[in-house]
This record gives sequence, structure tokens and C-alpha cells, in this order.
Amino acid sequence: MAEERSDEHEREEEDYRLDGDLVDRITDAADSGEAERLAALLEPLHAADIADLLEQVSPAERRDILRLWGREIDGEVLTEIDESIREEVIEALPKDVLAEAVRELDSDDVVDLIEDLEEPQQEAILEALDETDRAAVEQSLTYPEYSAGRLMQREVVTAPEHWSVGETIDFLRREDELPDQFYHVILVDPGHHPIGYVTLGKLLASKRDMALTEITEDSFRTISAWQEEADVAYAFNQYHLISAPVVDDHDRLVGVITIDDAMAVLDEEHEEDILRLAGVGDESSITDSVLETVRQRLPWLGINMLTAVLASSVIKLFEGTIGQIVALAVLMPIVASMGGNAGTQTLTVAVRALATKNLTQSNVWRVIRREALVGLTNGAVFALCLGAVAWVWFGTPALGLVIAAAMVINLFIAAVAGIAVPLVLEKLGADPALASGTFVTTMTDVVGFFAFLGLATAVLL
Amino acid sequence: MAEERSDEHEREEEDYRLDGDLVDRITDAADSGEAERLAALLEPLHAADIADLLEQVSPAERRDILRLWGREIDGEVLTEIDESIREEVIEALPKDVLAEAVRELDSDDVVDLIEDLEEPQQEAILEALDETDRAAVEQSLTYPEYSAGRLMQREVVTAPEHWSVGETIDFLRREDELPDQFYHVILVDPGHHPIGYVTLGKLLASKRDMALTEITEDSFRTISAWQEEADVAYAFNQYHLISAPVVDDHDRLVGVITIDDAMAVLDEEHEEDILRLAGVGDESSITDSVLETVRQRLPWLGINMLTAVLASSVIKLFEGTIGQIVALAVLMPIVASMGGNAGTQTLTVAVRALATKNLTQSNVWRVIRREALVGLTNGAVFALCLGAVAWVWFGTPALGLVIAAAMVINLFIAAVAGIAVPLVLEKLGADPALASGTFVTTMTDVVGFFAFLGLATAVLL
Repeated sequence: MAEERSDEHEREEEDYRLDGDLVDRITDAADSGEAERLAALLEPLHAADIADLLEQVSPAERRDILRLWGREIDGEVLTEIDESIREEVIEALPKDVLAEAVRELDSDDVVDLIEDLEEPQQEAILEALDETDRAAVEQSLTYPEYSAGRLMQREVVTAPEHWSVGETIDFLRREDELPDQFYHVILVDPGHHPIGYVTLGKLLASKRDMALTEITEDSFRTISAWQEEADVAYAFNQYHLISAPVVDDHDRLVGVITIDDAMAVLDEEHEEDILRLAGVGDESSITDSVLETVRQRLPWLGINMLTAVLASSVIKLFEGTIGQIVALAVLMPIVASMGGNAGTQTLTVAVRALATKNLTQSNVWRVIRREALVGLTNGAVFALCLGAVAWVWFGTPALGLVIAAAMVINLFIAAVAGIAVPLVLEKLGADPALASGTFVTTMTDVVGFFAFLGLATAVLL
Repeated sequence: MAEERSDEHEREEEDYRLDGDLVDRITDAADSGEAERLAALLEPLHAADIADLLEQVSPAERRDILRLWGREIDGEVLTEIDESIREEVIEALPKDVLAEAVRELDSDDVVDLIEDLEEPQQEAILEALDETDRAAVEQSLTYPEYSAGRLMQREVVTAPEHWSVGETIDFLRREDELPDQFYHVILVDPGHHPIGYVTLGKLLASKRDMALTEITEDSFRTISAWQEEADVAYAFNQYHLISAPVVDDHDRLVGVITIDDAMAVLDEEHEEDILRLAGVGDESSITDSVLETVRQRLPWLGINMLTAVLASSVIKLFEGTIGQIVALAVLMPIVASMGGNAGTQTLTVAVRALATKNLTQSNVWRVIRREALVGLTNGAVFALCLGAVAWVWFGTPALGLVIAAAMVINLFIAAVAGIAVPLVLEKLGADPALASGTFVTTMTDVVGFFAFLGLATAVLL
């Protein structure tokens, strides 16, 4: 029954894609210079959707929209916009509009906004901030890129450890510069070291005379400002954190990271992994020009060309054999292709297990053994299939035996290389997602051609 | 300077990986039957880490740990544990322990726990719940798998729209069955339709006589219980939601989804995409046995075998040509390999752009044109390189010309297929991540071999 109803409901559901007609009406209004109609169409949209819209239209349309509507742009739109066009958008805005837009933002958003900008643009934005905000942003920028220190917001809500619920509520009612979103009140000692936190839900549900220390959460984790942001995202997902205090070298509270920022990092990290596994620059974006795209993709295709030439030089060793038995030329790409695919399967599983911290010294040998056995089993299965194919196709049983043996060897090597290469890269401090694929397919190509043609030379000639 | 300090701090940082020594001590204690030492070692660990530990040890060690320590297991450990071993763990637990563990959980966690279990195990868990909880879980289970209705928790905190801050706080202090975590109070009308929400921060910072309707959030989104969970995760990430009310067909409030659950879904969706792009079953896990792993990977290797044989049959058409010019056999895998890689680059970008809803009717033609131009440009670059390689290697300028022309043709086809195939699959309602790779590499193999060997036959013979 659930299935039937699900159909009935499909039409009602939003899929959050930007409505194509709306985009057309917006570009129309921009095109014909109707500033008012444009503003009326953009006004109801969420900042994230406006950012997406600016990414999806053509560069000329983008310029028109910014010219007509730029004065009303929100700081949030700037933080949502893809880095590939952020600089272009910021340059298109009048100075005072930019200053106004930036002043509304929390410190972590300002950091995110300016860290990739050129010096003069950075200066322009920093100057627009009032002194406290500027100091907070500059402090964050002293931490390395992709660190917790860059991700955190400096605006934190703290309470001395001896306060009661009532005192805390009175403080919150008095304070008029609270962060937009906060989920905990962090208890600090006189040295400003965080020692626990209270959820706002507990605070609301407790009597005024309850001591804060009575209602702190059991599980409490602080994050070092030097921690890699990828590990921060992992910790949020693993431990279901909502917000976590960030501390400096002396364990003093310097900021707080909230789960929405951690979720955005998790999303980016995954995106990077997928693009890197495919040999695409991890900064690639749908708004990149042809030349930018070529520049991102050429290097990896270049490396692939070198490894392909290497594999071909293995074939060249056996030119004589192929000259006598042309069937080998027909069949050899199958051996290489199966090896490459099996290797990619194993390496993807290994890269993911490393990223999710599920491949550790406790189970690494068990996993290697499993992959080796899987390789041998798959090898045996496809040895049978392809042995039969070769026999039937070319009428030579011995050719079937040669391809069968090459298949077992190559799928075994694919499995071992598929797990060993990412492990070695990780040990060497390289990103296994970035380079594993090339190494593994080079190995399966070379081994595949060598085993198949070598065995053929030995057995068939 | 940031760089230097970063080194200095590297040692201090946690990377959240399970400590290998600790795992050894735990398996030691389990092995030698020391229940107390085992409990002492496990007690300080977070439920998510205990679940990871159970996944990383061998099946025999897992049985020992559960036998000695199972009585103290927490419901949360069960929800954290990977589906591949969840059934095994649940079966190892005494009935009363299971009942106790499950009673602590929120309704969404119970749903997540039981939806993949066999009927008798489901019944056992449902029976352990008290009547209200059981009704809530059963209600959630009426929604389809992977829907918002399954993801939501039924425990919600609501207030009538006419309440003041003070009335709300008094209610929260009186109520003793509040959810563990909640971030908003949802305002409902008398028909139980959600009409807005108030963050707990605003509630705490406002005076008691403030009306709730005065401090509701500007942006308020409800989610249909029928919505796909992947779209829910997208909405949370896109609009920075922290929690969102879920409504039924009549727009009545039926539950709430919180960001930590949305983050977990986002993580799973990415994982699925990566594994599918690599042709690995998306349920694959590090705990799978050799046979399970073979079963997951064989089908895709089988399809790959068929497409490889198809590509080989193209080569077979040109057996005569290869017999006369063996250099063609040496060079042809390069053409196919470059095409396969370029196609994978384009298709990965296309699959991601579809998943992030950045590839829409507004920009699809611009993106296709860009990819085609990128393909031609890359084709031209590698035509020059490989033309030169072939010329130098074999001393035949005409061979260089043939491989150059084949390169341009194949990289153009790779680009067009790389974008067209995922688009068509998406239109047909299939998951582009699942099947695109096979289609695209088959096309680049077939076109690559045909163009190269066909041109060679026409030009060189």
C-alpha cells in the first residue's frame, strides 16, 4: 500500500531544484532591465537559491542581475556562492553595499568569505567590519586553512560554572548581542577553560534555582583549533554533536563550531573524494570556463597517457607473437579491462574505509586477506567464462587456457594492488583518493598484458 | 608561521581513529574471558566507537565480546552498528537485554533499527516497547523506506500559537517526557498544523510576556512525510536547517527531523554514489565475508566482461589490418584508455552536478557545449602528443596522423557521452551514478577502436 500512495504523492513533493520557468523569468527581467520586477522575483528566494541561480545563469546574465539588483544583495548570498565566481560577484558590487552585506555576518562566515580572496579585496572587507569583529576574523585567520580555527565562529555563549538556571536566563535576556544560532551554554572556569555545557532544552525545562553543573551533558568534547576540518566533520557525524567548543593551545575557549558548518565540510570532503577518484580537479565547478576546465583535467589525462604508453611498451615486447597470432590483439584488452575494473572496485572500498576510519591496524590483515581471496575467486569465475569465449571464438583450446590463467593472475594483482596502494599512500601522507586510481590501473594494465602475452608466447608458439 | 605551528600541533590532535592498542587489550580481555576488565575497557567509550569496534574485530572476537559484555549494551550501540552485522548482534543478545536497550531510544532510532530486520526480530523489539512508542514506530513504518516519514522522530515539542514565552517555559518545566534533543518549539494551530517555530535561543533571550508569534523564525519550511530522505538531506544542507517539522497529507504535524539525522543521510548518500560509480554494491561493508563480497562485485564485472567482449569484436573486424601492421595492436589500448578516462571525468562531474541540483534546464546546453569544447581541446592536445609518440616510436608519420585523428574523435565522443548518458539515465528515472560508467566506457572503447583501426585500414593499407 505504501508503494501506491508513494506514487500519488510524487507530484506534491518538492525536489528543491530551482524552477526553470522562474529562472527564465528572472533572466528575462534582467535582460530587459526591469529592476523592480527582478527584485520582486528574487526577494522571496532563500539566499542559497539566489547563489545557485547566479551560478547557473550565463556570465552576461550574471552581470545584468548584479548590476540591477546588486544593491539589495545579502551577506548570506555571498557566503553561499561558489568560490569559482565569488571574486567576480564581489568585484561587481559597490563598496558600500559590500560593507553593509558583510557586517551582518557571523565571524566564521566572514572568514569563509575572505580567505580565498586577493589581498586588496580582503582589506576592503576587513575595513568594513567594526573593530571587535575585525579582531575576531583576524584571529581566526592565524589558524591554518582547513583547520577548526577557521571553521569556528567566535561568538560564543558562556556562563560561569557557579551560575544557576535563573541567573543564566536573566543574563540571556539582558544580553543583546547573542549569536543568531546557538545550541548550548558553555560553562567556563575563571581561566576561560570550558568545563561542560548545557543544552538550551535542559535550561528551559529546569527550575530557576537549579545549578548549571547539575544539568550539564554527560558527553562533552572540545576541539583543538588546530584540528583538521575533515576530522571535525567526522567527529560531528560520529558522535552526533550539535555544537562543540573550540580551544587554543592552553585549553582556553576561543570559539564554537556548529553542526551546519560541519555538515557543509562533510559534503565538500565527499565531493572532493569523488572528483579526485575520477581524476578531476577537486575545485571544479559547473561555472568554470572551457579553458579552466581543460587546465583542471589535462594533468591527469597527461599522467594517464604516460602510463598507457608504459603499458603499450609491454605489448611492444611481444610484437612478434602478436604478428603470428592476431587473436591475442583481439583478446588482450579484455584482460586489461577486467583487471582495471576489479582494481577500481577494491581501491574504492579501501579509500572509503580509510576515510571513514574503518580500516585500522586491528583489521587491516583480515581485509587484505579477504580482498586477495575475492580476487582469486572472481579470477576463477571469469577465467572459466573468458576461457570458454576464447576457445569458441577462435577454436583454439590453448588460447582459452592462456586467457584463463592471465585472468586469475590479473584479478589477484588487482585485488592486492587495490588495497595496498591506498594504504601505502596514506602511510606516506598522500591523499589515497587522489593518486590510487592511476597506480592501480597501471599495474593491472602492465601485469595483464605481460601475463597474457607472456603466457601466449610460452605456450602457443 | 601558521605552517610551523601546525606541525608542532600535529601530535596533539585526535584523529578519532580507534586506538589499536586499546582494541588489542579489549580482544585480549574477551579472549581470556575477563568480563570485568572488558567492561572497564568498554565503559568509557562512546556508543559509536563501540559499534566501530564490533565491526572491526573478527566474528569470533565479536561473539566473545557480546557473550561477556552483551548484558550492558546500550540501545545507542545497536543503532550505530553497521547493518551488515546488526542482525548477528541482535541475535546474540538475551531478550530482556534487547527490550531494555530499545526502550531508551527515540522513535526514529527504533525505526532505523528494525526496518531491515526479519519479521520475528521486528516483533520481539516492538513488543518490548510500551504502547505509545509502539504506535509511533508502527505509524512511521507505514511510510515508504527512505522517506522523511521513516527518518523523523515522533517526539515533538509544540505550543499553541497564542502562548507567551512564559507559558511555554512553564509548560517545558512541567513536562517530564521531553525529547533528548530539540532545537525549536513548533507553533501549531488548533488543527495541529505547524505555522512557525521559535528557536530555543530566542525563547531564552525573550521576556516572559513576549508572544511566541512575535519571535518566530522568518524562514520556516515543513517537509512532507513522503519526501525522499536524500532530498531532505539536501534541504538541510542547502538551507542550513537545524530541525524541520514533518507533515502528513493534510499538513498536520506528525514528527520532526533533526540535522544530525540529515547529516547521516547525506553521508550515506555520498557513500552510495562513490561505491556505485566504482561498480561496487552500495551495501558493501568492511565486515562482509569473502562470499558476500564476491556476490556484490561479480555482477558488475560480468557486465564489464560483456562490454569488453563487444569492444573486442570491433577489434576482430580489423584482424587483417593488425596482421599486417602490428604497431596498431601496440597503440590501440592507448586510444581506448584516454577515451575511458576523459569520459569518466566528464561523467563524474555530470553525476555530481545532478546530485547537487546544479545541472538544470537553465544551464544544461551551456554545460554540454562546454564539455564538447573541452573534449575537442583535450583531443587536440593529446593528438599532438600521441601523434609524435607514434611517429617516433614506429617511424611512420602516417601512423601518427591516424592516432591523432582517432584521439580527437574519441575524446569528443567521451565528452558528449560523459554528459549525455547521465542526463538520459536521470530522465528515465535511473540512478546516473549506478550505470553511467559502463555505458560511457563501452562507447569510448568501441568508438576508440573503430576510429583508430578503421582510419588505419583506410589510410595505411
